[in-house]
Amino acid sequence: MVGMVGGGPVARMTHQAAITLGQSLRVLASPGDGVALATPHVRLGDVTDLAALRRFAADCDVLVVVDERVSPDHLAALRSSGATVAPSAEALLRTQDLTATCRAWALPRGGPVPQRRVVALVARSPFGQVAAYPLVETTWRDGHPVEVLAPARQLDAERAVEAQRQALDFAVRLGVVGLLLVEFVETPGGLEASELSLRGHDAGHWTWEGARTPHLEQYLRAVLDYPLGQTRLTAPAIATVAVLAGAADEKGLDERLHHLYAHDPGVRVHLYGERPSPGNRIGHVTVLGEDADDVRSRAGWAAGWLQGRRDDEAADRRGDGQ
Amino acid sequence: MVGMVGGGPVARMTHQAAITLGQSLRVLASPGDGVALATPHVRLGDVTDLAALRRFAADCDVLVVVDERVSPDHLAALRSSGATVAPSAEALLRTQDLTATCRAWALPRGGPVPQRRVVALVARSPFGQVAAYPLVETTWRDGHPVEVLAPARQLDAERAVEAQRQALDFAVRLGVVGLLLVEFVETPGGLEASELSLRGHDAGHWTWEGARTPHLEQYLRAVLDYPLGQTRLTAPAIATVAVLAGAADEKGLDERLHHLYAHDPGVRVHLYGERPSPGNRIGHVTVLGEDADDVRSRAGWAAGWLQGRRDDEAADRRGDGQ
Repeated sequence: MVGMVGGGPVARMTHQAAITLGQSLRVLASPGDGVALATPHVRLGDVTDLAALRRFAADCDVLVVVDERVSPDHLAALRSSGATVAPSAEALLRTQDLTATCRAWALPRGGPVPQRRVVALVARSPFGQVAAYPLVETTWRDGHPVEVLAPARQLDAERAVEAQRQALDFAVRLGVVGLLLVEFVETPGGLEASELSLRGHDAGHWTWEGARTPHLEQYLRAVLDYPLGQTRLTAPAIATVAVLAGAADEKGLDERLHHLYAHDPGVRVHLYGERPSPGNRIGHVTVLGEDADDVRSRAGWAAGWLQGRRDDEAADRRGDGQ
Repeated sequence: MVGMVGGGPVARMTHQAAITLGQSLRVLASPGDGVALATPHVRLGDVTDLAALRRFAADCDVLVVVDERVSPDHLAALRSSGATVAPSAEALLRTQDLTATCRAWALPRGGPVPQRRVVALVARSPFGQVAAYPLVETTWRDGHPVEVLAPARQLDAERAVEAQRQALDFAVRLGVVGLLLVEFVETPGGLEASELSLRGHDAGHWTWEGARTPHLEQYLRAVLDYPLGQTRLTAPAIATVAVLAGAADEKGLDERLHHLYAHDPGVRVHLYGERPSPGNRIGHVTVLGEDADDVRSRAGWAAGWLQGRRDDEAADRRGDGQ
């Protein structure tokens, strides 16, 4: 039995991926978590409480920890109780160390973190198989990735291959089981790694429609030691933008969803069943198409509209599209 | 609140589509149904028992009936209790009438039903919006559609457009809310409708990866009166083949899944969480690609392999692919 620790949007979507695989995950979540609306096997408990984690782990062969609040110490304690745990405490700590090293190395002293970053997403199974998704670019605002564009634009082909090779190499050296996300900054000398993350699953939501294997299915396949799936893109350009809780309440959101679907039948909307509280991610939108500017513009408009944006830009873009 | 009547594979996958939409369906199902492993809001009851249906309907605004055992009489009784019901009893009865008429009209007297049929899948919302998926072809064995290939091959473009127009016209005339599947046989005079079905959801599973909007999301959007999504193909050729319970038990199936993933990382496998009892559909596989013969051959091999086939054909094809 696979146990999943965490009840937020990533847990909800990991359950959705598990349905495809015919798997039934057991979930440890808090009251009110979105995952409880989507899956039957929920045990309520505090994911930051080691005793609760131990009780939960006792019934599981494999533990998938998607809640970022679970500390490396607790991950190590869980492993010692016999379960296979992803991510492992060792990999998590070494990732954090490596990130510190990479940052010091890649970013000019005192230089700002650039808004545009190139991101590699790779998977690795216990058997040692690795798979790399095409490089994407992310745009950050207020410390969060809000937009992903696949594939990354204007990348030298050799540099791109080298960055993917580096990401796969990190996964092997860290002994990753699951997914590893590596961020790169572009320097005159090439792409240089600046951050490694075992839990950056939000940056992979473009894969639901944009890659042949959704990244959370890939995550489960890796953890369960199944051979990994194909990672190629399903369209020439894919944009995914986060939807933050905005001005619209639940009824308002529903009305806006109606308008959005009427306005752009090609937009894919994923809603997380979260109560809209300020700043919360309540969903994401993905647009597939032929042209990067087109899909970015449409996905950006869609997310802004669902967030309740009423500014001139939104009104203008809407007018253009109709 | 949307209520779903039925607990089989289609119910399970409709729940999976509902997760994307941020919806939580309430489900009426029987003990042991696959859906109970995937969704929390299950009420156990006999879907063929009117009293159980009425009790369930009392708490729902909209009822989606995916179990084919619910009779038109019961659908009518549910509607009279105030819920919007899809499919409606009227549409179901008229579909059956029309199918009888179409069959008499389209098939030569005493002629066998051809193995290859062309199928149109269309959606219609209460608002009156309609959307048509590209025509596909289905192959039948032992009275069941076992293979779907999208798009249908060697179709005259004018005939194809005319068939889609006919299918949309049927949906409007029948007042369909949800999905309508229309089967056509090819005659020297053109494509002639031979069967209409409001419940032929199995024939739409290719849309999970093969169309921009999965058909069961489209179904929910239609029933909830949201604007419908884009129906275009995501690849030049898509093949979906049913996986029937075969020689392999649960452990055997898992081993075969490992081999299949290793053999063909591009194959998409959907397992339904059903206990493998003979003849049961336990899943389906989909392959996307450039060439119809290639995707058919790979999907056919994959399904046969998961079913436990050990014949020479399977062995040969496997050898070719490695």
